Amino acid sequence: MSFPEFSFRLPRWVDERLGEQTRPYPTFEERMELAIALARENVARQTGGPFGAAVFDLKRHTLIAPGVNIVVPANSSILHAEIVAMVLAQQVLGHFDLSAEDLPDCELVTSTEPCAMCLGAVGWSGVKRLVCGARDEDARQIGFDEGAKPPDWPDELARRGIEVIRDVCREEAVSVLRAYMEGGGEVYNPQRTSS
Amino acid sequence: MSFPEFSFRLPRWVDERLGEQTRPYPTFEERMELAIALARENVARQTGGPFGAAVFDLKRHTLIAPGVNIVVPANSSILHAEIVAMVLAQQVLGHFDLSAEDLPDCELVTSTEPCAMCLGAVGWSGVKRLVCGARDEDARQIGFDEGAKPPDWPDELARRGIEVIRDVCREEAVSVLRAYMEGGGEVYNPQRTSS
Repeated sequence: MSFPEFSFRLPRWVDERLGEQTRPYPTFEERMELAIALARENVARQTGGPFGAAVFDLKRHTLIAPGVNIVVPANSSILHAEIVAMVLAQQVLGHFDLSAEDLPDCELVTSTEPCAMCLGAVGWSGVKRLVCGARDEDARQIGFDEGAKPPDWPDELARRGIEVIRDVCREEAVSVLRAYMEGGGEVYNPQRTSS
Repeated sequence: MSFPEFSFRLPRWVDERLGEQTRPYPTFEERMELAIALARENVARQTGGPFGAAVFDLKRHTLIAPGVNIVVPANSSILHAEIVAMVLAQQVLGHFDLSAEDLPDCELVTSTEPCAMCLGAVGWSGVKRLVCGARDEDARQIGFDEGAKPPDWPDELARRGIEVIRDVCREEAVSVLRAYMEGGGEVYNPQRTSS
């Protein structure tokens, strides 16, 4: 007997929508709109939770890898949108450290501020910048637990050389969370009653 | 074009050593010794970093899934030993939440206290108990960055219904970290000079 292999891939519609894309997304808003569109479409197509993210080339503003939350379909609590995007970016670029020599500087854009797990993962990923839409408290308001994060987490990342930009298209990002809740979407949190 | 699939599996020696195993590990020390043995052998066989973990059935004390750090060979900064063990346990049991109904209560045993990312992941995994060997400061002392964790993280987990047991076979766990450092093992941390 052996232990199982673990594998995942993006929902097919993400490949169809973005797999050929080489155009730049020059502004923070354009890059965030992509992350938000991924979150929205992930819910509409019932392929996961209301969260989207993407790793971009920080200087050329081109997409390296997108991510959506696929926790439920993939049976894996780690597959938040940010983790999916960072894992795939490391596969695309062929290194476990996106800050390795000869790689482009990388930026992670996420429709909602990272939870405690994703925040820790950002620190190991090698990205140089984190761009966030909705805030922690927006996610908490609809019942998603963000975990115990250090209250000064943006400063902690800055101390590690990772720039943090917040509140980009926050209202639009929040509207996706709100629509998910109003549509009766599942809010899963271990060891507690779903809301 | 499509984005890559991501997949990993345990080093073959882990399957060979543990794939057939159904015996119980009745004491904390026996379970920790397995996690430490995984850490030690992972270094000796050059299949990854000096960290081992395992998810056990909390009542029967049988192994559900082991984990070792395979960040470098798998090109993925998320593949710490704890993440590997929790991801595989969720695959073995067929659910993203190890606290789901009809599943056995689960315990995560780790040779070193979880970093910020793994700590967050513990909260979403559904495990009911976390058992730790070496402390944060032991890992920091040999140059591994644990990330920014809330100082009262054991209390935070307890508030989420996850029991935390620390310092099980701590000296033995530390000896693996120390041997790794003395053997010139790579200590990788993004955005900073390796020690």
